[in-house]
Amino acid sequence: MPKANPLVASLPATTPFVGPERLERENGRPFRARLGANECNFGCSPGAIAAMDKAARDEVWKYCDPEIHELRAALARHLGVSADEIVVGAGIDNLLGLTVRIFSDSGGAIVTSAGAYPTFNYHVAGYGRRLVTVPYCDDKEDLDALASAANRENAKIVYLSNPDNPMGTWWSGAAIEAFMDALPAETLLILDEAYGELAPESALPAIDTGRGNVLRMRTFSKAYGLAGLRVGYLFGPAELCAEYHKVRDHFGVNTMAQHAAIAALADRQWLAQVTMQVEAARKHIAAIGTANGLHPLPSATNFVTLDCGRDGEHATRILNELNARGVFIRKPGGPGIDRCIRVSCGLPHELDHFEAMLPEALKAAG
Amino acid sequence: MPKANPLVASLPATTPFVGPERLERENGRPFRARLGANECNFGCSPGAIAAMDKAARDEVWKYCDPEIHELRAALARHLGVSADEIVVGAGIDNLLGLTVRIFSDSGGAIVTSAGAYPTFNYHVAGYGRRLVTVPYCDDKEDLDALASAANRENAKIVYLSNPDNPMGTWWSGAAIEAFMDALPAETLLILDEAYGELAPESALPAIDTGRGNVLRMRTFSKAYGLAGLRVGYLFGPAELCAEYHKVRDHFGVNTMAQHAAIAALADRQWLAQVTMQVEAARKHIAAIGTANGLHPLPSATNFVTLDCGRDGEHATRILNELNARGVFIRKPGGPGIDRCIRVSCGLPHELDHFEAMLPEALKAAG
Repeated sequence: MPKANPLVASLPATTPFVGPERLERENGRPFRARLGANECNFGCSPGAIAAMDKAARDEVWKYCDPEIHELRAALARHLGVSADEIVVGAGIDNLLGLTVRIFSDSGGAIVTSAGAYPTFNYHVAGYGRRLVTVPYCDDKEDLDALASAANRENAKIVYLSNPDNPMGTWWSGAAIEAFMDALPAETLLILDEAYGELAPESALPAIDTGRGNVLRMRTFSKAYGLAGLRVGYLFGPAELCAEYHKVRDHFGVNTMAQHAAIAALADRQWLAQVTMQVEAARKHIAAIGTANGLHPLPSATNFVTLDCGRDGEHATRILNELNARGVFIRKPGGPGIDRCIRVSCGLPHELDHFEAMLPEALKAAG
Repeated sequence: MPKANPLVASLPATTPFVGPERLERENGRPFRARLGANECNFGCSPGAIAAMDKAARDEVWKYCDPEIHELRAALARHLGVSADEIVVGAGIDNLLGLTVRIFSDSGGAIVTSAGAYPTFNYHVAGYGRRLVTVPYCDDKEDLDALASAANRENAKIVYLSNPDNPMGTWWSGAAIEAFMDALPAETLLILDEAYGELAPESALPAIDTGRGNVLRMRTFSKAYGLAGLRVGYLFGPAELCAEYHKVRDHFGVNTMAQHAAIAALADRQWLAQVTMQVEAARKHIAAIGTANGLHPLPSATNFVTLDCGRDGEHATRILNELNARGVFIRKPGGPGIDRCIRVSCGLPHELDHFEAMLPEALKAAG
């Protein structure tokens, strides 16, 4: 029989995330509260729905535009950059894989925080690259430690999410800019701003594609409510962007995603409404946690991380007890931060169900 | 600045296909006949449209099922195989890239026909693998030459499309099975059956996932009319399928694609209708070609390849003259077969426009 090459053969059969659909199949019933994947339970813009309806009739029989011209043009206007400073992909996941593939090799180090986004690590392993991790500090990504590791290793890539997933914490734009200045010029910074639209403006550095070693990634999966369509983008120097076009799947960003994203981006009113709904839900989740003796961390995202006050096993028991009671959540897995659970901003009836189940779950977890 | 690794840095800035949207932007006007990408101009099943409408409202805010469970189950029933013998990807393009990544390494050879599907070659180059080509013979992929090259090189992978793109010709299922038997057991055969639903049944080998070195690929982009959604699949031995889950983008098959594909697969009546429309269009294209002194090749696909009787430059001139007259077509590029143009099965008014423009284009091409 044919064999996978030694790299792929050596990889474990793993997946960065188990989908809630699988848990529902195993449980034999749907979750009553879907609060684990940091989706936008409030839905997407009606304009995006209208664009999808039109595309279903007029567009899906055609191959999508491989240059993603209209969406890149809309993003360029939105960001105030040029279209060749933007690469659109099938979600940030897709762009992370391409970035590892392009900007590292089997020798160089790739730096991230222990417990940060696991799909990034999945790609690092999948391409046989070398991962170097630094711990979180005070429930934030440790900028000094990341910069030190990047300098010490002369790293090919350093990954940082701001606001952070899975903790919800964030640094100011000024702190991020100082971090950029502290990196070697040849180290590529991936600044994952998946939650950027939901953060205070002060958390986002000024847009400056003149920084030669920074690529910033954003998505339509979070604030814009289009997670299922798979569309994200990065922006940065045109010279770096050009490398993606040599290896990406040129037809990989589907038609629905291209049309819906343009409409979603244009609907500032819907985004403002979602932002308010997210803020209200964050307060609600924090209050539920506090009332049950859990400590809510500050959040600039569409989820709230709750410190359960003990160790990782304890937090995992709470998670399992909640899952068994129809509440889908996830939790941080890194050392130290694994004492927490992570609850996404859901609809009021979902948070009510979480509130009703949490006391029982805590009791059962011991 | 960060640098792409030596492999990516060495790659040309290329794309396997220029999209018609780009040509339209350059021409300053839309094509009147979109006959170049072998799409299903007849559209998709109304059931698929209904599924997309529902998904736009109820599903797209959620991440898609990373296990693609429902679609794999439907495909398993359809093919009479088990769900773990199926891998779904974001189109065959995505699966071809993964296959090269998994089942070859920098040393081994990969065999294809000179002028066969360029996106496969793009992935081979993108992963730094070694491509070995054999010429077409009598406008068909040369099974004996492909098997000889695979044996001589002890190839990691051999790629064959049946029915063939870009020629439209095909081998019988029996000939394909004999070809399978002639390959080394450790050589993986990718049998690309993108046009399988439009071919005579006799062109498709019996389904037998017990063949340890064969992966067959199919798509919803052709007969099913969902090219823009990006969804294709492969089937073969579970041991080979398992390797894909170690490196694929688990959330890479979007929600719309998953729902629409299930509905499209279930609508056998729509497929039968499209098959009839394709047959009628093939006859129409062949007749137009013959009336203008071009020789139509037999076709088991949704396009007809027309032999223009001279060389590649002549055929390219005809193509350019047609494009300038609002007719989007493409053409084979391999040695010998490049004397042809390729015309997709379009709507009657599109073929009428092709018919009206062809005499002028031939005259202008000289």
